[in-house]
Amino acid sequence: MDSITVGQFSLVSNAFSFSIATMAAATIFFWMGRSQVAKPYKTALTITGLVTFIAFYHYVRIFESWNDAFKVIDGTITASGIAFNDAYRYVDWLLTVPLLLIELILVMRLSRRETISKATRLGLLAAVMVILGYPGEISSDAGTRWLWWVLAMIPFIWIVYELFVGLRDSISAQPESARGLVDAARWVTVLSWSFYPIVFIFPMIGLTGGAAATAVQVGYTVADIVSKAAFGVLIYLIAVRKSEADYANAVPNAA
Amino acid sequence: MDSITVGQFSLVSNAFSFSIATMAAATIFFWMGRSQVAKPYKTALTITGLVTFIAFYHYVRIFESWNDAFKVIDGTITASGIAFNDAYRYVDWLLTVPLLLIELILVMRLSRRETISKATRLGLLAAVMVILGYPGEISSDAGTRWLWWVLAMIPFIWIVYELFVGLRDSISAQPESARGLVDAARWVTVLSWSFYPIVFIFPMIGLTGGAAATAVQVGYTVADIVSKAAFGVLIYLIAVRKSEADYANAVPNAA
Repeated sequence: MDSITVGQFSLVSNAFSFSIATMAAATIFFWMGRSQVAKPYKTALTITGLVTFIAFYHYVRIFESWNDAFKVIDGTITASGIAFNDAYRYVDWLLTVPLLLIELILVMRLSRRETISKATRLGLLAAVMVILGYPGEISSDAGTRWLWWVLAMIPFIWIVYELFVGLRDSISAQPESARGLVDAARWVTVLSWSFYPIVFIFPMIGLTGGAAATAVQVGYTVADIVSKAAFGVLIYLIAVRKSEADYANAVPNAA
Repeated sequence: MDSITVGQFSLVSNAFSFSIATMAAATIFFWMGRSQVAKPYKTALTITGLVTFIAFYHYVRIFESWNDAFKVIDGTITASGIAFNDAYRYVDWLLTVPLLLIELILVMRLSRRETISKATRLGLLAAVMVILGYPGEISSDAGTRWLWWVLAMIPFIWIVYELFVGLRDSISAQPESARGLVDAARWVTVLSWSFYPIVFIFPMIGLTGGAAATAVQVGYTVADIVSKAAFGVLIYLIAVRKSEADYANAVPNAA
């Protein structure tokens, strides 16, 4: 980390600031959108906004921690001696990753029994996945990183399987106008989440020092923006389409 | 406290930050949820959100006080000389613990007379319990700690008795769809509250120095998250189910 350049430091700092602005804007968009969807979809949008709100909070902390860790004076960078706190990301994911799965389940509007069982199972798997990743993240030993990476991949693959097989039947029950979007939301979840284990292995495949730190920080930031804010826009669109479909069914002549 | 390690310091700091994010997110969830429940349950959700909001405020103060008390430079921790303020917790509990009991009573929707008498009695008992715990908390003498612990356990056991015996009859009067949840809320109250007197005795049963401080701080934080935020989710679900049941009774054909 001490070999970081001024350019790398600034790139990461600006990526964090970009994420603060994006998460805050996304939060307000989702919460304002609550008034434009039917009652059964409001909780999904509340939680969609909570995910970006929690991420906004943590990006403020991450940004401050990053800027406390280095001092750039007259174009020269020095480590301040204060460690950059990487744990904020994991604390964030512990809260937001289960909530992301819950917002997808809620917007699908399954039966109460299915909603509770799927939300509980997927939420717990997501929390276990994040917890298993952390001991690897804070290690600089490649062997230790691989061990925890493999362990965290077990719940990850289980979640992907549940999303693909377990939710497939529920997708055919969605109104036609929303089916494509729900399918897209599943795909965005799987693809954007796959980004995290890839970023995690950057330091294990030859990237070192400042380049590794920069790639990891920028990589996670991009993945967070896609999986939380962009994914949330899909959830919002699904909620709007389904509200319209419900209304058209209830009032046939209005369609 | 002066023997605390960098790892212990970071664990506590991250636990506090986790709690800040959780309490803030929970507060917004409960207050947004007000629009999704029937009128008689809105005050219960207002108060549920007030509890997590007050806890959010205190965790910001606690986080700052903790980070002011220690300095970590180049991996070495030193006490700054500024004392960590443990009183924030007790100030928080003095406000939130009576409110927690009041939110449970409100969501049960008892008669006005019963609501007032139970809220007054349980609220006062809770305040007395918190006040009696504080002289023990700030003492490092095991004898003094035990004395105040025993005194605080008297109102604690009285509250548990009231919840189990006094509210039992009211539970059978709840709509069937909410009965299991109300029962769960009583149990979560008793079990999560039992965590506090257990955490309190950590320093009296052999834990010393940094390990004791870490166990106490993380223990109280977990207990606060369960008894305020997770408990609040139960209160929200009870309010939603009871709103649905009230609506189904009022409009029989809508069921």
